[in-house]
Amino acid sequence: MGTAGVIVDPGDMAAYLREPREAFFGRAPCVVKPRSAREVASVLALCNEAGVGVVPQGGNTGLVGGQTPDESGAQIVLSLQKLDKIREIDPASDTMTVEAGAILANVQAAAEAVGRYFPLSLAAEGSCTIGGNLATNAGGVHVIAYGATRDLALGLEVALADGRLLSGLSKLRKDNTGYDLAHLFIGSEGTLGIITAATLKLFPLPRSRATAFVGLADPRAALKLLTLAKARAGSALVAFELIPRIGVEFTTRHIAGVRDPLAGAHGWYVLMELASPAESGVEDQLTELLGEAMEQGIAEDAALAATLEQRAGLWKLRETMPEAQKPEGVSIKHDVSVPLESIPDFLAEASALVAVHAPGARPTPFGHMGDGNIHYNISQPEGADRVVFLARREEINALVHGLVTKYAGSVSAEHGIGALKRDLLRKVKDPVALELMRAIKSALDPKGILNPGKLL
Amino acid sequence: MGTAGVIVDPGDMAAYLREPREAFFGRAPCVVKPRSAREVASVLALCNEAGVGVVPQGGNTGLVGGQTPDESGAQIVLSLQKLDKIREIDPASDTMTVEAGAILANVQAAAEAVGRYFPLSLAAEGSCTIGGNLATNAGGVHVIAYGATRDLALGLEVALADGRLLSGLSKLRKDNTGYDLAHLFIGSEGTLGIITAATLKLFPLPRSRATAFVGLADPRAALKLLTLAKARAGSALVAFELIPRIGVEFTTRHIAGVRDPLAGAHGWYVLMELASPAESGVEDQLTELLGEAMEQGIAEDAALAATLEQRAGLWKLRETMPEAQKPEGVSIKHDVSVPLESIPDFLAEASALVAVHAPGARPTPFGHMGDGNIHYNISQPEGADRVVFLARREEINALVHGLVTKYAGSVSAEHGIGALKRDLLRKVKDPVALELMRAIKSALDPKGILNPGKLL
Ligand SMILES: Cc1cc2nc3c(=O)[nH]c(=O)nc-3n(C[C@H](O)[C@H](O)[C@H](O)COP(=O)(O)OP(=O)(O)OC[C@H]3O[C@@H](n4cnc5c(N)ncnc54)[C@H](O)[C@@H]3O)c2cc1C
Ligand SMILES: Cc1cc2nc3c(=O)[nH]c(=O)nc-3n(C[C@H](O)[C@H](O)[C@H](O)COP(=O)(O)OP(=O)(O)OC[C@H]3O[C@@H](n4cnc5c(N)ncnc54)[C@H](O)[C@@H]3O)c2cc1C
Repeated sequence: MGTAGVIVDPGDMAAYLREPREAFFGRAPCVVKPRSAREVASVLALCNEAGVGVVPQGGNTGLVGGQTPDESGAQIVLSLQKLDKIREIDPASDTMTVEAGAILANVQAAAEAVGRYFPLSLAAEGSCTIGGNLATNAGGVHVIAYGATRDLALGLEVALADGRLLSGLSKLRKDNTGYDLAHLFIGSEGTLGIITAATLKLFPLPRSRATAFVGLADPRAALKLLTLAKARAGSALVAFELIPRIGVEFTTRHIAGVRDPLAGAHGWYVLMELASPAESGVEDQLTELLGEAMEQGIAEDAALAATLEQRAGLWKLRETMPEAQKPEGVSIKHDVSVPLESIPDFLAEASALVAVHAPGARPTPFGHMGDGNIHYNISQPEGADRVVFLARREEINALVHGLVTKYAGSVSAEHGIGALKRDLLRKVKDPVALELMRAIKSALDPKGILNPGKLL
Repeated sequence: MGTAGVIVDPGDMAAYLREPREAFFGRAPCVVKPRSAREVASVLALCNEAGVGVVPQGGNTGLVGGQTPDESGAQIVLSLQKLDKIREIDPASDTMTVEAGAILANVQAAAEAVGRYFPLSLAAEGSCTIGGNLATNAGGVHVIAYGATRDLALGLEVALADGRLLSGLSKLRKDNTGYDLAHLFIGSEGTLGIITAATLKLFPLPRSRATAFVGLADPRAALKLLTLAKARAGSALVAFELIPRIGVEFTTRHIAGVRDPLAGAHGWYVLMELASPAESGVEDQLTELLGEAMEQGIAEDAALAATLEQRAGLWKLRETMPEAQKPEGVSIKHDVSVPLESIPDFLAEASALVAVHAPGARPTPFGHMGDGNIHYNISQPEGADRVVFLARREEINALVHGLVTKYAGSVSAEHGIGALKRDLLRKVKDPVALELMRAIKSALDPKGILNPGKLL
């Protein structure tokens, strides 16, 4: 690969050995930065031969420590940053072929440049890569209408543990010639192969949007609003995010420029958005829908964004929720999902548990309610000691995840398992499913060199 | 299982040993009909122990011989017909849990009974089962808007080769806890496990539909119409089927009640449909869209269905295409896909090849153009000898599939591989992909008892 492709200087390596929040860090003999799929495959062939662990890394925005080597110093980091080309855009086929290291925001922009839409959207889009999105099956705010990253890929090119290259790029929307290998690699967090490129689906560009901020009494009302919105708007409903009152308080208090969009206070809020390829119509549709929701007593109040600026303001409130929690002290976070029907009960029981077991702690559950995905964050009690609160993390995790399990939910709805939840996975997952995963891992990576110690 | 669950009488077995078209038949010592997932698993445990091959069968409508035992008489047939319960419908979560043997039409009806929509739709829906749909990843006419069967399942319950039962039913729309096992079993045609139940996604019930039959000069115009329709209607475009002039001639000639919807003759036709959960609007949208298409010279003429009866008439023309070919003699069929952009070139070159190599033979390519999926059927020359024409099947297959490969297409877009295309798969598929499939097969079914000789 030449010296330019291999970093060994500790200072230059540092950024690759810790993730930005500094929650995970490790050591490595070197960081390699291949420039082509062939080079990725060659690195793997060598490492497989030598029995050296390889940790794939994209934008280093993952939240579960999957992209960080362990502390043994024996695993190398393989960064995909130099594989960042957009290989081809084919608007007539509504496809786009990009390399794994392409930044999500660049992929979105390239689609838009040919009048198409790539709907994956998350707060890290300026630095996360499409390879990382695929490896973690990232979600984001548009899953309700377009699915997760998994649903946006048509085919993958993957370097396998022993250096073979799977040429699975494909523009086909239908192909029933054998097992679906792409879906196996998507969401496998770099433990089965290293994704080097992907063919992605493109969609018609929405030409109109309507966004509302709705005040409601409780999550049950939010669920009713969701059911109504789906019945009326179908797949035009592109976002449905839940926010608790405390989220509005935190963001208006701590984030410059965020204002409470509604005059009075409400227990809960929904940020919802309709979009359509038609030039108009969604605003009327949203107004009508909200009228119906008010009439039926589902919604207490609602504000429609009248300008792009107002729309940006509503989204800013939602997107800065995690940031606004910081000045309130530390928090204990959970990325969970439950069946839609169980969201209200889950939220009520979770907050009762917190009240009993951690009095004063402030639950701030928010997120992608349309997908059943709640970021169940709990801010420390006001003025309490950070360290004392964080020391109870395991205990509080157990309470929340126990409740998730009771409702047949998921302890990792969108962020994956990585290092953070590896031991948890062993406890909550169907044992037969775990056995199958291990069998597949052994079949594809018999020496266990791919992202060792992650996920399984 | 008791004697009621095991058929050994040759007369009673006959229907399970041949598929309705009689293109495939085999022998078996018995047909077993378990009544529960546990019984399915027990049968597999026994067969695995004894090394006996098991051929899963649902509605026996598959078109590639996957559900038929071979002629050795050593494989048993395991029919899922008795596992036909709808276990649960949860409208608030928009999910439904059904057993594998449930007939697709019953699943659709059960969804509609609670005001929801299950969009999978194909001509065999009155007899095919959801398990067979999942095992073959069936497509049908709504893939363009809702995806294939793969995209409609949230989780599976699967009996494994050695008798373990994977409990993967799930109502979750987001769950990133490890490898996606459901996607591995979907489309694996009974070679990796036997699906006993599935949790399916439900959708809002469309409350309005608009259907048009459009006359065009050629497939390039049809592709332009597709691009325009997606840009204007987005996911409201729920069907986009291509039909050649000869298809209109065949159906109007041979099928009672089918009339040419347009006054003049056109080279090609598109049957397109918009649907929406709104009570109105799609008709105007379709009218406008077609006006634009006429103005731009894309469409030559168009008829909008004004009544439900007219709509049924248009669909009847499309759905009876295969039937209408029969009185014209035998035909050689191909279920292929190519990238959308390549459809016009593919069709032009294929018909040129046929003209050279089988003069007088009549290509009747039709199907799910919106998904790039063409049923490239070729009717024998008028009045020619059936046997002589059919004797050239392999040769004509090779021509068509060679062209498909040139365009990076698929030789089985929706029907699967089964017995029919097993040897073909070996020739056209990326060797690394085949190696991976075999590695997975060995990991999950080391004794090779699941649907032996199919797919791989
Ligand atoms: C502010 C912020 C907001 C976020 N919002 C969301 C959200 O809404 N939804 C969501 O799902 N996630 C979210 N995330 C998490 C994160 O952004 C996503 O998981 C993202 O997809 C990771 O991409 P990355 O390129 O940074 O991957 P990395 O962090 O570099 O890696 C993530 C994992 O993928 C593996 N990997 C990376 N590239 C490859 C490859 N080419 N082949 C194989 N394996 C690879 C790594 O080994 C690691 O296990 C957010 C993160 C931040 C910091
Ligand atoms: C008139 C007609 C129209 C059709 N139209 C379409 C169409 O538009 N699109 C399309 O994709 N297909 C179509 N098909 C093909 C066929 O209907 C589908 O493949 C259907 O999904 C098969 O379902 P089945 O229950 O009949 O399965 P079967 O024919 O019984 O089995 C099909 C395959 O699945 C396996 N299998 C069945 N059940 C299970 C199970 N529970 N677990 C594991 N493996 C199992 C079998 O072993 C076999 O390999 C059509 C067929 C006909 C006859």
